[in-house]
Amino acid sequence: DIVAAAASLFAPGPLAGRRVLITAGPTREYLDPVRFISNPSTGKMGLALAEAARALGARVTVVLGPVGPVDRQGYEVVDVVSAEDMAREVFARVEDVDLFIASAAVSDWKPETRSEHKVKKSEGPEALTLVRTTDVLAEASRKVAGRARRPALVGFAAETQRVVEYARGKLERKGLDVIVANDVSAPGAGFGTETNQVTVLTRDGQERTLSGTKLEVARALLRSFLAYLPAAER
Amino acid sequence: DIVAAAASLFAPGPLAGRRVLITAGPTREYLDPVRFISNPSTGKMGLALAEAARALGARVTVVLGPVGPVDRQGYEVVDVVSAEDMAREVFARVEDVDLFIASAAVSDWKPETRSEHKVKKSEGPEALTLVRTTDVLAEASRKVAGRARRPALVGFAAETQRVVEYARGKLERKGLDVIVANDVSAPGAGFGTETNQVTVLTRDGQERTLSGTKLEVARALLRSFLAYLPAAER
Repeated sequence: DIVAAAASLFAPGPLAGRRVLITAGPTREYLDPVRFISNPSTGKMGLALAEAARALGARVTVVLGPVGPVDRQGYEVVDVVSAEDMAREVFARVEDVDLFIASAAVSDWKPETRSEHKVKKSEGPEALTLVRTTDVLAEASRKVAGRARRPALVGFAAETQRVVEYARGKLERKGLDVIVANDVSAPGAGFGTETNQVTVLTRDGQERTLSGTKLEVARALLRSFLAYLPAAER
Repeated sequence: DIVAAAASLFAPGPLAGRRVLITAGPTREYLDPVRFISNPSTGKMGLALAEAARALGARVTVVLGPVGPVDRQGYEVVDVVSAEDMAREVFARVEDVDLFIASAAVSDWKPETRSEHKVKKSEGPEALTLVRTTDVLAEASRKVAGRARRPALVGFAAETQRVVEYARGKLERKGLDVIVANDVSAPGAGFGTETNQVTVLTRDGQERTLSGTKLEVARALLRSFLAYLPAAER
């Protein structure tokens, strides 16, 4: 709203007057009205980033997949369910922001068809055909590529093996500025935990490890993104 | 614990001294370390039943699928993830209770195999083979069938069409005393809502509709189960 926007314009933080778009949480890909494919993301890391960005003076929008009740103070929340919903809401906003952080755990696959009614059980095995969802981050990156004022683009890579190698490949393939790599099989890191340990890789080859509570990690991460922001307007 | 057990023995309610086992929440069937098939159950109806049973004097155990943080005061909670976990915990307890309420939304199918590492995306469609999970309620019913002291058996049927007809079939097929039928596509009923509207069907052909908050519905449901309890011990 206008008051919050005015307040953030005069806030002292390094993100004062900046617009930040963050995706958070899982997506759900329904195969019928009551069954879906998803993942255990609770949105905590993305919401910690939203809170930290707000504290640094930014105007923040979170495109949030289905998580339980969460604190929505201080930033705009756009609720979505599926990867396609998330893609639509991100594409409508990404060209107007200074920083896009894709921290959501977007489903890579969705069922090819969705039944209108609950599928009744049969005794034999069932074959479910899965097709790829829209790659929200890669498409958003393509959408802003080559723009004079391109937002800084940050991705997350949740992996269980060869974490840094996979993350580096994702950074290059998707044209990102920074990627935050997460070994979700490590204790005290990843899905549903209060703490996190991440490796930050940048397009100019830097690599550093951060750990702490998700809010501590979020604050340190945001500071590492500042170098990639476009020049402030006016 | 002993104090709670002693307290419930002297509680004045109609379930004083009775043991009640309740399943609640969804199950998750993982295909790799980070992806699963599930459903939107929040466990609210089952936890409302636990609370209502406790208030009527029962000693309550809840076998609870993955839900967010919930109040665990006044009853034992056994946390589980998959249908097979839930089956194991139920089978270990069902012979020792007076009332078993299967309110969990157990996944009917699980992936045939579970990959040790996160499956990397390929571009083409993927075929996922699903196999049936253990039918927790049907197996529990078989386990106690013919016993002199058989617990009252209550099932839930979440449907989106022909709700009462499907529920009646399930009651008969699984040898239940009562089934609670839920049209999960109706507004203000089913998954994630605070209210519920259900149709209660009994093995002796009764049928009635209940509605209200989930706790109000839980209280009315429990009273409708009393007639099917085995004779109190001693």
